[in-house]
Amino acid sequence: MRIAVDAMGGDYAPHEAVLGAVEAAKEWSVPVILVGREEELKRELASLEYPSDLISIVNAEETIGMNEPPATAVRKKRNSSIVVANRLVKDGEADAIVSAGNTGAAMAASLLTLGRIPGVSRPAIAIPMPTVKGVTVLLDAGANADCDPEDLLQFAIMGSIYAEAVLKITGPKVGLLNIGEEEEKGNRLTLATYGRLKESSLHFIGNIEGRDIPFGACDVLVCDGFVGNTILKFTEGFATALFCLMKEALLSTTRTKLGALLIKPGLKSLKARMDYSEYGGAPLLGVRGVSIISHGSSNAKAFKNAILSGINAINEDVTGKIHKLIAADQKKS
Amino acid sequence: MRIAVDAMGGDYAPHEAVLGAVEAAKEWSVPVILVGREEELKRELASLEYPSDLISIVNAEETIGMNEPPATAVRKKRNSSIVVANRLVKDGEADAIVSAGNTGAAMAASLLTLGRIPGVSRPAIAIPMPTVKGVTVLLDAGANADCDPEDLLQFAIMGSIYAEAVLKITGPKVGLLNIGEEEEKGNRLTLATYGRLKESSLHFIGNIEGRDIPFGACDVLVCDGFVGNTILKFTEGFATALFCLMKEALLSTTRTKLGALLIKPGLKSLKARMDYSEYGGAPLLGVRGVSIISHGSSNAKAFKNAILSGINAINEDVTGKIHKLIAADQKKS
Repeated sequence: MRIAVDAMGGDYAPHEAVLGAVEAAKEWSVPVILVGREEELKRELASLEYPSDLISIVNAEETIGMNEPPATAVRKKRNSSIVVANRLVKDGEADAIVSAGNTGAAMAASLLTLGRIPGVSRPAIAIPMPTVKGVTVLLDAGANADCDPEDLLQFAIMGSIYAEAVLKITGPKVGLLNIGEEEEKGNRLTLATYGRLKESSLHFIGNIEGRDIPFGACDVLVCDGFVGNTILKFTEGFATALFCLMKEALLSTTRTKLGALLIKPGLKSLKARMDYSEYGGAPLLGVRGVSIISHGSSNAKAFKNAILSGINAINEDVTGKIHKLIAADQKKS
Repeated sequence: MRIAVDAMGGDYAPHEAVLGAVEAAKEWSVPVILVGREEELKRELASLEYPSDLISIVNAEETIGMNEPPATAVRKKRNSSIVVANRLVKDGEADAIVSAGNTGAAMAASLLTLGRIPGVSRPAIAIPMPTVKGVTVLLDAGANADCDPEDLLQFAIMGSIYAEAVLKITGPKVGLLNIGEEEEKGNRLTLATYGRLKESSLHFIGNIEGRDIPFGACDVLVCDGFVGNTILKFTEGFATALFCLMKEALLSTTRTKLGALLIKPGLKSLKARMDYSEYGGAPLLGVRGVSIISHGSSNAKAFKNAILSGINAINEDVTGKIHKLIAADQKKS
């Protein structure tokens, strides 16, 4: 097994990417291929102690910036780190790819290079969201702005496989994100999807409203990529705004300042619980191979955990299981 | 001017509804009509000091429960407090209605009793959301699960009028909720809406992503009712979950417990800033009359502020302004 890491992708690349890769290689004895500008990567490695038999470099001169139009950039920059890393998987030289670069480009590179699993209409980004109880896998988190009921059914199948295989949730509960609990509530998409999920062999528990997401009402939550991406980004903004306001409120008087000092360890543990870097990146489910997309601001820990997600997805043959179940589902219908 | 209050609607009705109505009547010398079971309302009033020339009761024997199917309930229960209150506005005996009851029923009652302003395709719920900077009016917050670009343009027009007239925001900035900043990002709906907003005479500032909402990126934010309702409910759940986790973290050690005691006043001011009851309910814009829908868990302060929103909407002739601008917009196109 080998993991290809797009070492140039992310706000803190290549430094944090290399650091995370080295830590992962050490901890799980997994071979990691760093893809990016060789000279830069060698320089990063020079300052680290690392298992030289596990860390290798594949040179890729180009990079794709955070604001480049994804599809065009992927088509034009054939020698960018993200495209080269995906090609390694395509060519059987690596078994998974991890990237924290331009999300659209990471998606496009995997879609164009690896292709879709037969029968999958639209690969989806499955994001593990921290909840009061643990983690809920939300998909699609932004790969497909417009979806149909068949897409959402496939998201539910793929998300369940991932939750069971990688997150070790037995018989994951599937929820349909909706604006009411009752079956007859919703928009055209969710109304048409409800029946499909109900008839499926999944552990479908019905509609889940926005207010129940943070309490971990289900293990796998399906919605179209517009809604999923909006929630994902809103969560980020809301948490940041809240911590800003809290800081302001706590630094307003001497009394609250002293209190703030005392609660610091408590707040730290709270922040850690909500820390995306603990949750190992989001797989792009439905492509032919394991592709893990990480947050743009990934640090070493996030890269390391994303690599672990990749390892688990390979070991549990998530791609093969999706292939099998989607094919079975299509035979049935 | 007279305000009709559905005194039986809401988790804490009629007690908090009556209390809020009395406070509003006292503070702004506005006549308030309490609609509901006369005996019960008289009993509530008996324990209060109130301006008897400003508070009157209109009897309505029936009530609509929080979980009754809205449209059916409104059609069947012609003598429910919410329907009777709307009829008072329809018949010119009141100028605005305030309800904290079943949101769907409040909406249906206003739609069916008052009807739409000519030219308005779909009335929308405009919810004032607290942000770091102040308030953003989000619409539609749940009246219309499926929308087309024309609907969103009308939401933008109605939201701008409300923000300007009632929230006193001069030249309100309008944003389109989207999953990317660039004009070419989005789903079918937002892609088709962008151009319409750009061509309009509104102060359109472009796409707004979820992460920017809590920072008050715009004054009026338009989206379909599915997305708006999901965000609204998610915000509620997320804030509750976060305060739960924080409480847990702060009560974990003696040190953090002491700290928690010290920061209490700071946290209180923060909670107040995020308190929906400060923001006066959400108008259902686009119906022929002023209809303010309040949160189900409204307390007296929330009722009082909702009544104030009603007063302002009447004084500023929000309904008339919407009529005029929508008509002008339709002549143009």
